[in-house]
Amino acid sequence: MTHDHPSAALATFAAELRFEDIPAPVLRRTEDLLLDWIGSALAGKSGRPVRTIEWYARQMGPQEGACEVLVSRRGTSPMFAAMVNAASSHFAEQDDVHNGSVFHPAAVVFPVVLAIAQSIGASGKDLLSATVAGYEVGIRVGEFLGRSHYRIFHTTGTAGTVAAAAAAGHLLKLSPERMLHAFGSAGTQAAGLWEFLRDAADSKQLHTAKAAADGLMSAYLANEGFTGARHILEGPQGMAAGMSSDADPAKLTDRLGERWALAETSFKFHSSCRHTHPAADALLKVVTEQKLRPEEIARVVTHVHQGAIDVLGPVVNPQTVHQAKFSMGTVLGLIAQFGTAGLKEFEGSYNDGRVAQFRGKVEMVLDDEVNTAYPARWIGKVTVETVDGRTFSGRVDEPKGDPGNTLSRDELEQKALRLAQFGDAASEAEMLALFPRIWNIAELPVVGKLLG
Amino acid sequence: MTHDHPSAALATFAAELRFEDIPAPVLRRTEDLLLDWIGSALAGKSGRPVRTIEWYARQMGPQEGACEVLVSRRGTSPMFAAMVNAASSHFAEQDDVHNGSVFHPAAVVFPVVLAIAQSIGASGKDLLSATVAGYEVGIRVGEFLGRSHYRIFHTTGTAGTVAAAAAAGHLLKLSPERMLHAFGSAGTQAAGLWEFLRDAADSKQLHTAKAAADGLMSAYLANEGFTGARHILEGPQGMAAGMSSDADPAKLTDRLGERWALAETSFKFHSSCRHTHPAADALLKVVTEQKLRPEEIARVVTHVHQGAIDVLGPVVNPQTVHQAKFSMGTVLGLIAQFGTAGLKEFEGSYNDGRVAQFRGKVEMVLDDEVNTAYPARWIGKVTVETVDGRTFSGRVDEPKGDPGNTLSRDELEQKALRLAQFGDAASEAEMLALFPRIWNIAELPVVGKLLG
Repeated sequence: MTHDHPSAALATFAAELRFEDIPAPVLRRTEDLLLDWIGSALAGKSGRPVRTIEWYARQMGPQEGACEVLVSRRGTSPMFAAMVNAASSHFAEQDDVHNGSVFHPAAVVFPVVLAIAQSIGASGKDLLSATVAGYEVGIRVGEFLGRSHYRIFHTTGTAGTVAAAAAAGHLLKLSPERMLHAFGSAGTQAAGLWEFLRDAADSKQLHTAKAAADGLMSAYLANEGFTGARHILEGPQGMAAGMSSDADPAKLTDRLGERWALAETSFKFHSSCRHTHPAADALLKVVTEQKLRPEEIARVVTHVHQGAIDVLGPVVNPQTVHQAKFSMGTVLGLIAQFGTAGLKEFEGSYNDGRVAQFRGKVEMVLDDEVNTAYPARWIGKVTVETVDGRTFSGRVDEPKGDPGNTLSRDELEQKALRLAQFGDAASEAEMLALFPRIWNIAELPVVGKLLG
Repeated sequence: MTHDHPSAALATFAAELRFEDIPAPVLRRTEDLLLDWIGSALAGKSGRPVRTIEWYARQMGPQEGACEVLVSRRGTSPMFAAMVNAASSHFAEQDDVHNGSVFHPAAVVFPVVLAIAQSIGASGKDLLSATVAGYEVGIRVGEFLGRSHYRIFHTTGTAGTVAAAAAAGHLLKLSPERMLHAFGSAGTQAAGLWEFLRDAADSKQLHTAKAAADGLMSAYLANEGFTGARHILEGPQGMAAGMSSDADPAKLTDRLGERWALAETSFKFHSSCRHTHPAADALLKVVTEQKLRPEEIARVVTHVHQGAIDVLGPVVNPQTVHQAKFSMGTVLGLIAQFGTAGLKEFEGSYNDGRVAQFRGKVEMVLDDEVNTAYPARWIGKVTVETVDGRTFSGRVDEPKGDPGNTLSRDELEQKALRLAQFGDAASEAEMLALFPRIWNIAELPVVGKLLG
């Protein structure tokens, strides 16, 4: 039935996925991702674009409701809670990423499942299985749309809308038929252009906010019988036809129920654009092993994939913290200076004289091996030349936070504490009380509020 | 400054347009379009997709507010009023169209200006100039995106989001700088794929609803300082880069302030396929002038362009209202019987015995003059033979509703009455009370509610 109809096969999987079918390690990883997301959502409290979207939600939405806006502690309707929580999730650039699809699933999936769970009184198990449905769908849609899509479109905005619809539809218990309609409505709303990067504009928060809200809307509409295109992903006037030149429909249904793409998702360790991480880890390895101080370094050549050049290349002279996160030179300058490129380092030092000076020493060069391995593997390779004429090569095959080099629950708790503190959005006591609830969420009959 | 920056030139025009700069005939046409839009928005009340979106607005939005939802008479916030009114505007397919951009401006511009005007207490003059800003921007963006865009994307959804932002931004009195940011946020949300047509799915209502709501959001965010890409239309990762292969940036700034694209917009007169309109108008001319009853007519030869034969030729025995709109014989039968081929006539009588009988009297013949003039001019030519042996020729050089053969205010009122009655959404008394308010809207210090 669905052999020639990948949209339907994927929708059917998302609708019919059962908690019992999900392997325990995948469920534990889902809990890890949930806590990691909460930290990111709290960290966004300080963001002006986040506050503006929260203001908009107050102007246009209801003044109360069962759904928690994490950065303001207000209650509102599912749509606006999902919108604001998604806006804040991606602000600190500390949320998770799936390498193969270059997609940030947490930022668009968790805001939706949390809001709907709080609205309908769903259980922890339902929240977890809906999350898995959202990740599995969104990652495959991102992989399907391919590299040509990502050159112009922000996959987290586009594939993210379908992911959000899948997660929302699962929690609303849509039939496979209605899930397919939800996909249709989501795909025809999917949007998000990289053009904003050139101006360091606020669109990234808008993209996640809208992907979550629009995906949620698609599922609610489908639940009431609203219909959508049945081939929105692969059809002749669908998403790929309009927004990709290298789409591969086979990726939409790649080992559904056998391959758990959620477990391939990486945690972010550095606070910068993920495209900078492999080189940052490789440089960190060199400066640690060689005990190099920044002033001893004359030049750093980063050997990168084309996507890194496309996304980071335009950022030559960052004027804001956000832009600095897309500046390879700045990230490597912070690594060389502080040994880490966290939120605190960006806020305090992204444009320090020493960091700015280091920036000029860094260049990006397209590397065949790295480019070919990408996006399945994000290899980091740097060549470091010292002022006294020595040359060192650094290499990491898997950046910190990737599945083979993942964060422990202790590391995840420490990261969440730092993020909550950075956003001034939750106290340490609140976070410490939250941790065991997350690790045991599968036992909760009703998810309820996360914070006070 | 803006010579090499068409997005900025267009945004500056939209921000700085003054009521006093708009020629009086353009303002009068804007009032015509406003009334025509109200009729269409009311006609959508009966639509299931419209009711579902209205349901969603009640679930997610506030239960009261200053902004009128025309089909339900509820008050809500600007975003949800714009969303629902835009959903209903395009349902009956009787709303206006700009031929060159293949864009339906009313459906996405008026819902936004009405909602914001009601929210902030704007004057009629402000509403009119905001409308003109929205039309001028949206039509130029549609022309800019070109035919390649329209093959996959529903221009009313995509260009419509920017049009809505321009109209909203004008009413909110954004500076040129902030208007440009509103364009950036709108363009990065712009979406809408034709894939739904294949399944006759409900997405058309979603596209107009979302274009209006998302454009409105963009302007409100910009008013609070939220930034967007400065070259969202023409930039290397902007709308055209992602969604067009034949975009022409010169069209974005084509004779701004001199050419009034709004006045090029066509009203829809008959409720049928546009290929039937020239012949329908020509027949109407003959039967009106000669006072012919249908039973007096023995034969009608329509002299048409090849496109009409291609599209309408296969429809010989229509089985649904939708098919009947593509049947030349049915359309001419309704014209002969009722003097009009409107929603009511199609719904009630498309397969009446008398209409079906007339269908057999109609044939299409390829005409050199008509075929050569097409598509620049849509000439209508018919030859009518009566049962008593007389022969009459009818001819129109521009179909009814096009700018050179536009609808009179009396005809617009009659159309609006029919649409309101079709939707069972406003009484005749309400509509009659509304007409003089629309024709004098420029004198209103505060627009206020349109109905009860």
